[in-house]
Amino acid sequence: MLNNTALAFEIVQEFLDEKDVSYAELLEALKIIKENDFLAYENILKSLDDEDLGNIASLMPEHMLSDVLELSSSKKIALAIGELESDDATDLMQSIEEISDEKANQIFANLSKQEQDEILFLKRYDDDKAGAYMQTELFKMKLSDTLSDAIKSYKKLKVKEELEHIFELFIVDDEGKLQFSLPVADMILYEFNATFSDILQNNPSLSKELHFVKDYEDIDEAIILVRDYDLSVIAVVDDNNKLLGRITHDDIHDLLQDSATEQIYNFAGVGDIDSEDESVFKAAKSRATWLIVNLCTSLISAHVISIFSDAIEKLVALAALMPIVASMGGNTGSQALAVTIRKLALGESDFAKAKKTIFREISISFMNASVFAILMGFIAYVWFNMPMLSLVIFISMILNLGIAGFIGSFIPLLLKKCGFDPAIGSSILLTALTDALGFFSFLLLAKLILL
Amino acid sequence: MLNNTALAFEIVQEFLDEKDVSYAELLEALKIIKENDFLAYENILKSLDDEDLGNIASLMPEHMLSDVLELSSSKKIALAIGELESDDATDLMQSIEEISDEKANQIFANLSKQEQDEILFLKRYDDDKAGAYMQTELFKMKLSDTLSDAIKSYKKLKVKEELEHIFELFIVDDEGKLQFSLPVADMILYEFNATFSDILQNNPSLSKELHFVKDYEDIDEAIILVRDYDLSVIAVVDDNNKLLGRITHDDIHDLLQDSATEQIYNFAGVGDIDSEDESVFKAAKSRATWLIVNLCTSLISAHVISIFSDAIEKLVALAALMPIVASMGGNTGSQALAVTIRKLALGESDFAKAKKTIFREISISFMNASVFAILMGFIAYVWFNMPMLSLVIFISMILNLGIAGFIGSFIPLLLKKCGFDPAIGSSILLTALTDALGFFSFLLLAKLILL
Repeated sequence: MLNNTALAFEIVQEFLDEKDVSYAELLEALKIIKENDFLAYENILKSLDDEDLGNIASLMPEHMLSDVLELSSSKKIALAIGELESDDATDLMQSIEEISDEKANQIFANLSKQEQDEILFLKRYDDDKAGAYMQTELFKMKLSDTLSDAIKSYKKLKVKEELEHIFELFIVDDEGKLQFSLPVADMILYEFNATFSDILQNNPSLSKELHFVKDYEDIDEAIILVRDYDLSVIAVVDDNNKLLGRITHDDIHDLLQDSATEQIYNFAGVGDIDSEDESVFKAAKSRATWLIVNLCTSLISAHVISIFSDAIEKLVALAALMPIVASMGGNTGSQALAVTIRKLALGESDFAKAKKTIFREISISFMNASVFAILMGFIAYVWFNMPMLSLVIFISMILNLGIAGFIGSFIPLLLKKCGFDPAIGSSILLTALTDALGFFSFLLLAKLILL
Repeated sequence: MLNNTALAFEIVQEFLDEKDVSYAELLEALKIIKENDFLAYENILKSLDDEDLGNIASLMPEHMLSDVLELSSSKKIALAIGELESDDATDLMQSIEEISDEKANQIFANLSKQEQDEILFLKRYDDDKAGAYMQTELFKMKLSDTLSDAIKSYKKLKVKEELEHIFELFIVDDEGKLQFSLPVADMILYEFNATFSDILQNNPSLSKELHFVKDYEDIDEAIILVRDYDLSVIAVVDDNNKLLGRITHDDIHDLLQDSATEQIYNFAGVGDIDSEDESVFKAAKSRATWLIVNLCTSLISAHVISIFSDAIEKLVALAALMPIVASMGGNTGSQALAVTIRKLALGESDFAKAKKTIFREISISFMNASVFAILMGFIAYVWFNMPMLSLVIFISMILNLGIAGFIGSFIPLLLKKCGFDPAIGSSILLTALTDALGFFSFLLLAKLILL
């Protein structure tokens, strides 16, 4: 962790001396320098070469990317984008578009025809599709090629540093349809003058071990395949089995971390983007959205309580006890919610399996509901010495905690079924329901039984 | 997703026919068959060969592993464990120990001396250390070896199927100290009769590009390196730089998914283990732990309310409004909590940077506190037409929401500093504080200002 500007400058110097400093470390250092010495920061940005500029720009938050757009000519930025792999180039172009459409157009005009086509091709895919995460650059050969051809191509790719993370060699037929793939290192296992047709004929199992996703399939499918088969890379093909691109394990790695962040943010009702680099004002605004929802739902709860104000006036103990019912219900529901959300994320459940998941959660919550209803009934008796009050809190806890398990497992399944992220605001929806239900059941029962 | 037993049997058949079925899919099928046709399930388990038995057993939940232990001789299970890589073998032995120490001892006695030593070696590492996730099998050569030697070794490893996921060739000196590493495919880039010393001399940058962790370093360090440098594999060395093992990207992948699950579970107060395969009773018991904590904290809140019962008796509107203050505080705090927990997980914050993180969260929450305090003051005025009541809810919301931001960012930082998981029960601790504080500040202010 960086603590001060001097250390940040040291890291930048090490980077420029081509010591082993990652772009992530460089970015951290630049953030610190930007805060403390803006002129030096601008000079460093200007001095970066095309490749470094492209790589660091694709990691940058908006406010730093804006600086790059201001300081560099469209031509320079286009060259930097040209150094990136197609998926990163597309992401960066999209980030630039969000900052300035005009600048984006200028930069786009400076790209080569091939780069433009690639970006237009990849931009078509929605965020949740496998195609959106593939890069079109890959190491592929035809069935009619020999291993010597492949080795020559590999050497060329390596010397030109055109392609990183070359784990797998993809073999296609004359129409570009994917036939099989080989770990690159396995090239040395075969005769160098054999063609890939020969290899496939002698090793028919190769085509069975092939793993791929369709470009319009859900990216989650790719994640599950990569996990289940411990893949380093997965091919992306179109409906005709034509090879379009590949998704590498480091993209999957980033996806997993992003989706873990998104999930816990959605769970807690934090806006999508909430990084250190966003301004405090923007972060507050984005979080306010869910706070407004929460305010509305708690006003409903307040209204529920006010309906029973006569009961509370007669027995003020109700006011003290009612938050216990609501809070225990909310907690029981949160547990069911977290478990269901993770099951959906890991592909262990879906709407088809919903009955089983919900049944399990209801069983668990009713089991705990019984235990805690008895316990709370007893505590209420010791505290207020009113057997009927104990009965009221006992029944309302059974109801609220039990139903919380149902709600907690049902909400994410329903959200997912409707095409939303299963975690979005689910926690706020849940507590809205368990609060309102907790107050209502407890106060209604009190009115009916006690008063 | 599997829906019925017939499909499950089909998948098992495909697996036995050596079609491309992953162990994860086989396991899903076995679970279904176990529920519907126990005899068939037992027969399938018995018919698995050593390698498949080892691989499927290391994925199994406890209840299925118990069946394997009952059905197979210790010798058979020892053979299955012998087929696994050292890290998986160690994990499986530890799972078996948890079921039956006696059986574990019998199996351990049937392992070869080398397998026993490896397992004893790996068992020394705590769960959070890099060493606990490494496998000792790797593809390594000495400086004095030639490339032809390496290619011969690679062919041998491949033919014997001794090692999976061979991405990287590690080069050590005579004392076993790590010197540099090469992507395996890059072997074809050099002269076959060159030694690795020669290669290093001609390409000194190779030793600079080396990435490794120490065995007693935190596993999070390895995760960050793998992410920042897009590594497929990372070397694990001891304090003398001696090469001990490697961690591959698929292990990191599993770790990321597990830690995402753990984090959201800890956040919501679900016990560590809560899979579909655990019995409902066990799951309920483990979740009850945090419900007990929640019950205690909500009893404290109830006590706070009961202190002010005279105020509520005089003005029952207080009972309706007080949960709003508590709920909005809890929500604001949850947002700060989620953001801080993810920052810690992604290495973007730590105790040294705490001041900055906390300051940011307090700024955001006070900003929203002001907005919602004004809004709620206005709503209360319209609803109850008591200006002083509006003032009370205004002040108590500013206080509670503002402080919630502090608590939400401080709790995870403190937990981490004390060596706990920053997410553990943090949500329950937070709402305990925001509830108690919300009720207390609101009712106290009401008593002082209104009554």
